[in-house]
Amino acid sequence: MTDSGSLGLVQIQTAQLFTADEPLRLVGGATLGPVEVAYETYGTLSAAKDNAVFICHALTGDAHAAGFHEGAKRPGWWDNLIGPGKPLDTDRFFVISANLLGGCQGTTGPASINEATGRAHGLDFPLLDMADFVTVHRALLAHLGIERLLAALGGSLGGMQVLQWALSHPEQVSNAAIVAASSRLTAQNIAFSAVARRAIMDDPDFNDGRYAELGVVPRLGLRTARMMAHITYLSEGAFSEKFGRNPHPERDKPGFGIDFAVESYLDYQGRVFLERFDALSYLYLSRVMDYFDPFSRPGATERIARQPVNFLVMSFDTDWRFSTDHSRRIVKHLANAAQPVTFRDIPSSWGHDSFLLAGQRYHDTLRAWFDRALRDGLR
Amino acid sequence: MTDSGSLGLVQIQTAQLFTADEPLRLVGGATLGPVEVAYETYGTLSAAKDNAVFICHALTGDAHAAGFHEGAKRPGWWDNLIGPGKPLDTDRFFVISANLLGGCQGTTGPASINEATGRAHGLDFPLLDMADFVTVHRALLAHLGIERLLAALGGSLGGMQVLQWALSHPEQVSNAAIVAASSRLTAQNIAFSAVARRAIMDDPDFNDGRYAELGVVPRLGLRTARMMAHITYLSEGAFSEKFGRNPHPERDKPGFGIDFAVESYLDYQGRVFLERFDALSYLYLSRVMDYFDPFSRPGATERIARQPVNFLVMSFDTDWRFSTDHSRRIVKHLANAAQPVTFRDIPSSWGHDSFLLAGQRYHDTLRAWFDRALRDGLR
Repeated sequence: MTDSGSLGLVQIQTAQLFTADEPLRLVGGATLGPVEVAYETYGTLSAAKDNAVFICHALTGDAHAAGFHEGAKRPGWWDNLIGPGKPLDTDRFFVISANLLGGCQGTTGPASINEATGRAHGLDFPLLDMADFVTVHRALLAHLGIERLLAALGGSLGGMQVLQWALSHPEQVSNAAIVAASSRLTAQNIAFSAVARRAIMDDPDFNDGRYAELGVVPRLGLRTARMMAHITYLSEGAFSEKFGRNPHPERDKPGFGIDFAVESYLDYQGRVFLERFDALSYLYLSRVMDYFDPFSRPGATERIARQPVNFLVMSFDTDWRFSTDHSRRIVKHLANAAQPVTFRDIPSSWGHDSFLLAGQRYHDTLRAWFDRALRDGLR
Repeated sequence: MTDSGSLGLVQIQTAQLFTADEPLRLVGGATLGPVEVAYETYGTLSAAKDNAVFICHALTGDAHAAGFHEGAKRPGWWDNLIGPGKPLDTDRFFVISANLLGGCQGTTGPASINEATGRAHGLDFPLLDMADFVTVHRALLAHLGIERLLAALGGSLGGMQVLQWALSHPEQVSNAAIVAASSRLTAQNIAFSAVARRAIMDDPDFNDGRYAELGVVPRLGLRTARMMAHITYLSEGAFSEKFGRNPHPERDKPGFGIDFAVESYLDYQGRVFLERFDALSYLYLSRVMDYFDPFSRPGATERIARQPVNFLVMSFDTDWRFSTDHSRRIVKHLANAAQPVTFRDIPSSWGHDSFLLAGQRYHDTLRAWFDRALRDGLR
């Protein structure tokens, strides 16, 4: 392995990819325009444009995957993976990371202003489909003058976007890495999202989705949703190891406040989330996940059958948000369509969050897979 | 097996067990009086008073465990277990079931009127300990003129009460059946309860616990808490089997309402819960569970070492609320204290809720255990 370094300062960029006159046509039939997309790039695109890797982020991620923003103390959310000498080596790869459609970190979403009304879209924002995310990613690629990706990579909802992209446009994705994802949420998965949405929409400040124009935020509901979600992001063992039954150091006396360390952790996660995430995006993006079920669609694997994609499917053995069974199901469908699939179930004690962490076997696997992709080049 | 029948009509009774002058002294140092207790009994106490079985209920249970109340369509919550010819056979056993201290179904709790102020206790109600539940159960037994129990039986929080009772007063409990319970919640267990409490206390109608006197109820928060809890009561497999990804039959078009059958189930569970449960009881009782850790107390097993109890510890192999590991931990502690312990991990696809269901192996095991207890008699 080479020494790995930091990308240093990076900047977010914005592209207007669709207009009111030439709007984005959504799977559900609605149109949306203009659509702005926030993105970052790391590394240098080769002259042959054959080293581009697209990062798809998870439910609450953003375009800032690596490096540091001016004045920031913490780097992007996947900085341990992306940078000079890192598994996704920016000395060799050109990496693109974009905030997804419906998000709230620079890309058009339900909290964006609807130019037709001058108000935030709110619940008038159209329902989205996983394929809509991909349509916008593809428009960004075109905007950047890139026709084909050496690879697409994503964890959780990001992996679901990668799967959708490969299924619908295999000619554009030579390699597809799908980490800790699912092709079909279970009833339990949907149940957790349903309760999160319930908490958000029950918040009196939700105001039927019109909270922004009223100058409020459904903070309490969004916090509850995030706290609950965080329980599913860690394994039970990770919770025990990190917190056990330790008391919260600042507890004065037992009561209904923050008595245990684990309660302090959830409280913190809930509060910092409010600084950066929009309640309507939570509703829209989580609902896309609920409905995602690509292999149930007729002809789902017709395109990849004609144009195979090198798939890497990875799970973590303690992930109970999207357990190894979810990845096995994806692998089964891909194998049935005669795709070259590498499957790795990585031992990790941290559960779903493992895809964001720098586990040795996890990163070694990704490094070897990206190195191989670069050697093989675009098909 | 004999044919099993119904208890028919049963009635709830109320006893005043402590007074303002002779109050209940709580583990935490506070006193509480008067204390009323709601209870039911089924079957007939033998002349020798040697056939009494005490039922301890779970977090949201009540005294009405079996038979029918006048005009009711549904029987008590453990009616499949308790009745003539049933595993806990009321032709032979005298069964006592009481609402626990801090509850909201007839026994004194935080929503009860504080006679000193004329208002509901609210958050002035003192914090409780598992041993306080037992103290009140024991007072009820004394009120009924019963000195010793042939057995105590409880599931989940009910099992925790049975464990506490056996540890602190083994001379009173010849046999103790602890089902789907825990002697020590994990960080993940506490986390779920913490989010539930957060949702309740964040509800604007909570009003710092004074909602009753303001004529409101923190309905939305309590509903969210209940919906989330229900996710933990069923196994992932049970959710898949019951609901899968089936659409809700009344769904008109996709959106953020009730699109999937599993969402309808949670919505229903959340709504009916509001009819019968109090938000403050949820806070108080769940907090008792968080803090329960009896084997960490010095001398925890001294009394049972001198006066052994016949223990039955049961878990369900798909229970992830209190997994089999929780029961194994209890068994280990009891075995270290040289107790006669029978341990059964029952195969069941339903998760934590299995303790309320009539699984054949589960009920057969309980039937055999109660039959043996009756043959052996009081020690």
